[in-house]
Amino acid sequence: MQPFTAQSAASVAAWGEERLIRSIRRWLGNASPRAPFGIGDDCAVLPASRGRQLITVDPVVFGRHFDAGVTPRAVGAKLLKRNLSDLAAMGGRPTAAVLALTLDGRVRQAWLEAFYRGLATCARRYGVPIVGGDITQADGVLAASLTLLGEAAGPRVLTRTGARAGDWIFVTGRLGRSLATGHHFRFTPRLAEGTWLARRAEVRAMMDVSDGLAKDLHALTPARCWPALDPDALPRRSGADLRAALTDGEDYELVLAVARGADRAGLETAWRRAFPRTLLTCIGRFARNGEAIPGAFRLAGYHGYEHLR
Amino acid sequence: MQPFTAQSAASVAAWGEERLIRSIRRWLGNASPRAPFGIGDDCAVLPASRGRQLITVDPVVFGRHFDAGVTPRAVGAKLLKRNLSDLAAMGGRPTAAVLALTLDGRVRQAWLEAFYRGLATCARRYGVPIVGGDITQADGVLAASLTLLGEAAGPRVLTRTGARAGDWIFVTGRLGRSLATGHHFRFTPRLAEGTWLARRAEVRAMMDVSDGLAKDLHALTPARCWPALDPDALPRRSGADLRAALTDGEDYELVLAVARGADRAGLETAWRRAFPRTLLTCIGRFARNGEAIPGAFRLAGYHGYEHLR
Repeated sequence: MQPFTAQSAASVAAWGEERLIRSIRRWLGNASPRAPFGIGDDCAVLPASRGRQLITVDPVVFGRHFDAGVTPRAVGAKLLKRNLSDLAAMGGRPTAAVLALTLDGRVRQAWLEAFYRGLATCARRYGVPIVGGDITQADGVLAASLTLLGEAAGPRVLTRTGARAGDWIFVTGRLGRSLATGHHFRFTPRLAEGTWLARRAEVRAMMDVSDGLAKDLHALTPARCWPALDPDALPRRSGADLRAALTDGEDYELVLAVARGADRAGLETAWRRAFPRTLLTCIGRFARNGEAIPGAFRLAGYHGYEHLR
Repeated sequence: MQPFTAQSAASVAAWGEERLIRSIRRWLGNASPRAPFGIGDDCAVLPASRGRQLITVDPVVFGRHFDAGVTPRAVGAKLLKRNLSDLAAMGGRPTAAVLALTLDGRVRQAWLEAFYRGLATCARRYGVPIVGGDITQADGVLAASLTLLGEAAGPRVLTRTGARAGDWIFVTGRLGRSLATGHHFRFTPRLAEGTWLARRAEVRAMMDVSDGLAKDLHALTPARCWPALDPDALPRRSGADLRAALTDGEDYELVLAVARGADRAGLETAWRRAFPRTLLTCIGRFARNGEAIPGAFRLAGYHGYEHLR
């Protein structure tokens, strides 16, 4: 749907602030609690956290992350799912979200309604109350930024730090051709998988793959090491060649380091019992600089998605 | 400072993502903790909260909230202070903030540096760690949205709900001419005052004045009541007439309801001891519909700042 309209009666500007906020509350429905626990006061009030908390923020911007060819419902859902994927990467579960919307007054009421309904459906599915927000008008802009709050689902939070030389590199699902296949809108954030992996002592570090493995994997790689990948092991989406699997981005899968002395077969068996429909694949290991690994290839020459280009 | 530059070497696009993020970390300095407690992982990790939490989000957008006539340091500080004012209105204190930045690649490096340094100085002053963020490129846009997390400073959170018929209406500081005088950049968010007021049992409801008292006061007014204001009591900023005091907006003061049976003189005496340099003024009371109050005037005919206009 084209988000902007020349018919002023169909635009959000025709409504004014009060009616727009009333409409948003209706669209969000029970995905948004009543004030002061939701929208309608200076701040939203949240219960005390049960343990360590996690916070992340990600936007969707018209012309950058979506265009008129995408349904606004899918845009609303993706905004939340992008953030859930970041939470999944640390073994967290969501507790609340707030949304900052920046929009041109000529944005179509129908576009905004479908966007919020898509967000609300997704928020209900993953149990994320939308507790607050802000709306600002700006010419020519349609952008939404969501801040997601969560908490550690278990005793441990997995970070990008912790992998050591010799550790195995695993990845969930398949990589590549996310944009070509619509996976970047349809994906399921790996929340259940992330909390499961955070409870496994042999998993030492984890992150989500959003800019492409070739770029993201650097952040997981220990000092004085290089990721020695087996090109044949890399789980590719149908039609994806090696370059696509490494550089397309928007995979929203998890990549993790498993202690080199771990019982790999035991981990894989337990995984298959817990997640029979999702791949968990060993794609290589972190080798020391200077160490030669027969058959392994180097990521140099592959580049993931570069922001600000 | 003009935020955009035609000299590509002076623009953020010349740096690319990695160098930009490295620069931002340097500008924020110790206002941003190390990962995973700050910027650099999928989420930031925060300690468990001590009590109920508060969350709010507010942006600054070029062309809407600021222009080239404003120092970028002031813009960065205002972004945080706007949010702190919302927190103050509920009696909260800040715990962490995340920042989502949307910018054109032609934004001047020097502009962005001063913006972040202004934000960092303000964050240190109020003890708010900047724990996370996101940067997205979008043509023609320069906008930043800050999500502020806080917690109740005492046993009670003050909301907009709770005022009753007959309650007194008080306001902190002075109202009007905020834009004309630069108050909207120079103001000090009423954090200390807000937590002090939340501990006083006679204060029943509170909010901050950001869109002008004429508009904001409706949210504090009990059902079947009207705010009967004394026009002579309204504390105005120098040069502000009644209309300016009621409708200019961006005052960032607190307006509160005090129980009608309360010891007003006792409250005012205690306030003067705690905050000798800040006014706390009784400006009227909530009268029942149909109740005539000699000398009081009605807000009908005055309108505060309307968003989406």
